[in-house]
Amino acid sequence: MRAGFQIVEGGLDGVLGIFAGGIRCGIKNKRRDLAVIYSRVPAWTAGVFTQNQVQAAPVTVTRNNLQKTKKLQLVVVNSGVANACTGKKGLEDAERMAELGAQIFDLPQKELAGVASTGVIGEFLPMDKIEQGLLNLRNGFPEQFFAHDAALAIMTTDTVPKEHACQFSIGGQEVHLAGIAKGSGMIRPNMATMLSFLACDAEIEPASLERALKIATQQSFNRITVDGDTSTNDMVLILANGQSGAHPIKESDSEFSTFQEALNWLTGELARDIVRDGEGATKFVKVVVKGGKNEEEARKCAYTIAESPLVKTACFGEDPNWGRIVAAAGRSGAKFDPNALSVIVNGVSFVEKGMGARGCSRQEMKAVMREKEIEVVVNLGVGEQRFEVWTCDLSFDYVKINSHYS
Amino acid sequence: MRAGFQIVEGGLDGVLGIFAGGIRCGIKNKRRDLAVIYSRVPAWTAGVFTQNQVQAAPVTVTRNNLQKTKKLQLVVVNSGVANACTGKKGLEDAERMAELGAQIFDLPQKELAGVASTGVIGEFLPMDKIEQGLLNLRNGFPEQFFAHDAALAIMTTDTVPKEHACQFSIGGQEVHLAGIAKGSGMIRPNMATMLSFLACDAEIEPASLERALKIATQQSFNRITVDGDTSTNDMVLILANGQSGAHPIKESDSEFSTFQEALNWLTGELARDIVRDGEGATKFVKVVVKGGKNEEEARKCAYTIAESPLVKTACFGEDPNWGRIVAAAGRSGAKFDPNALSVIVNGVSFVEKGMGARGCSRQEMKAVMREKEIEVVVNLGVGEQRFEVWTCDLSFDYVKINSHYS
Repeated sequence: MRAGFQIVEGGLDGVLGIFAGGIRCGIKNKRRDLAVIYSRVPAWTAGVFTQNQVQAAPVTVTRNNLQKTKKLQLVVVNSGVANACTGKKGLEDAERMAELGAQIFDLPQKELAGVASTGVIGEFLPMDKIEQGLLNLRNGFPEQFFAHDAALAIMTTDTVPKEHACQFSIGGQEVHLAGIAKGSGMIRPNMATMLSFLACDAEIEPASLERALKIATQQSFNRITVDGDTSTNDMVLILANGQSGAHPIKESDSEFSTFQEALNWLTGELARDIVRDGEGATKFVKVVVKGGKNEEEARKCAYTIAESPLVKTACFGEDPNWGRIVAAAGRSGAKFDPNALSVIVNGVSFVEKGMGARGCSRQEMKAVMREKEIEVVVNLGVGEQRFEVWTCDLSFDYVKINSHYS
Repeated sequence: MRAGFQIVEGGLDGVLGIFAGGIRCGIKNKRRDLAVIYSRVPAWTAGVFTQNQVQAAPVTVTRNNLQKTKKLQLVVVNSGVANACTGKKGLEDAERMAELGAQIFDLPQKELAGVASTGVIGEFLPMDKIEQGLLNLRNGFPEQFFAHDAALAIMTTDTVPKEHACQFSIGGQEVHLAGIAKGSGMIRPNMATMLSFLACDAEIEPASLERALKIATQQSFNRITVDGDTSTNDMVLILANGQSGAHPIKESDSEFSTFQEALNWLTGELARDIVRDGEGATKFVKVVVKGGKNEEEARKCAYTIAESPLVKTACFGEDPNWGRIVAAAGRSGAKFDPNALSVIVNGVSFVEKGMGARGCSRQEMKAVMREKEIEVVVNLGVGEQRFEVWTCDLSFDYVKINSHYS
């Protein structure tokens, strides 16, 4: 058990007043492709959206609705079609999708519905299938609602659903925090959409909720997909519906730090799941750059190493080819003294003072490269700043999955 | 025939007073790994070197020697070991390699020898093998000197040697320009070393030679590996030894533009060869970004598209997944109006006004993706600036080659 909060089994189902479900409406073949997350009452909601200049229609619609109401009661999500690069018709479709959800689930106001999409860019949503799917979901509500199905329905090339839950106490009252996510498409989830839907049954006012979500995403989803480098459809939403009955969590209360800690854990777990399930991934790779002159340089260096296809293929091949790490650092633009650089992989020193470490045999180096999780620590030795990035290796399967997608 | 210069068969052998050869000295298994390029007389020489912060010892030595003399008479090149990240001993080895070359080939001054290395980072050069190799090369000089062997000896994961030659007339006198190159390791030859050695039997003074080489590399090697983003060992040298007997080419003469044109062609051919021979490459991909607000944005956008593993795997899979191109442009940081963007692939319109082009069937799109050379033209529509980048696709073989290299 961690201080402050407890990890619990299950997912969104444990959050009071939250009902999530997923079915197949026929966008994809033989797989679930439509999910809803419904709150018994309108919930304060905060969102983080893609910074890509090309924003999919559902991102625009959800952001607009949220600006008006600060609350959502329903999120409708489809996979298979991204509804991006679809112009005016795409925007109308996304608005219609929200309206259909609001209507079918009897929301008091249409702006209380948000929408999200993930899948192929440039195709239009099959609106009739989505409408019928929403009607079918409504018919099964709430008996046929299983949050696990929602986690399945938002998947694209993901191989496993991603869901985590925890709980903590507010004024003696137990409150629940849980979420689902989808990602895949590794190498800085370049264009693969990252979606995550989180819910908490505490009440938290939206400005605080937004600040907490920003802090949490900064050290989780943004470790793998940084601002300005996201897909057209990325979206993270958190709903806080107050259904636990606990008193509202205020930012000035010490309880808020427990909530923040739990949220950091939850988003961290979901982000790590996304990396582990990266397309074709066989290893989780953590790149830590220390000793940077400033954070920007540490960040650049960490991303250059983490994104280097040569470093990633070496991880896949379990090849202790540290020259590739050094060369990536060298071209990253981060300042360092080449004769002071050090690289440590899973505790074993690969590079000391810019040269191959003498204390370590090639046998030892090979052994750590065979581990399932690889931590590469690069010390630039010119300052105090640190940046950490999570990625995965680059395997045959990555190429296989991505060469025949659309 | 092109205006001004003629393409001719063969390579460096055609350049008067230039002798290039290559043998196996035993760094690599069963393959040539040591080359020399020798000029009958000291030749004015210009060089372009890696901008990587981590510079291999041979880069330092050659640059220093060139600074002193502006001339080289010999270049000794080995493959198999990069002599990078090798500290003080590495520097001594590179200096010794140059000295051995100068001694064995009777140069009047040791600084007239340059050195270059390519291969695994972090290992020391086997100096005894290199010395013996140089002695063996000297024994075979000039009868056993074939420039094709030099082109073979500098290869690493390259599958074919790269050599081109041309000739043109200076004051009625025929002069020759030729060169060899090695590259491989595609995806912006990230860390794979790019080496090229060019020679001309005209006389050109070093400041002019350097300016001409910079212009030529800018539109050839720098299309595939941009400043600040090169390996630890990258090097391009051009020797101009005056052995044709033609009068010196001065920058103020109209003949200089013929030389520049020929040099642009030569470096362009070698650079395209490098891309075509990219590790596992099955297609040559040219990305042209037009209509940029400024060159920097056009450049960023072109590189983001060209380096996107999702775009590259789609090219390999012959999948007309244009959404990946649009999304890469969107995250590149280049400004554009998402509703005005256009993408044309091999003359077929894929995207118009930010949406899938209506005039084109999926069949047509698939057909152009099956072509061997793919030209992607993206029009940002916000200015006049253009940037072009050459790359290749990302295949199973790329992963195979790079997962077990060292």
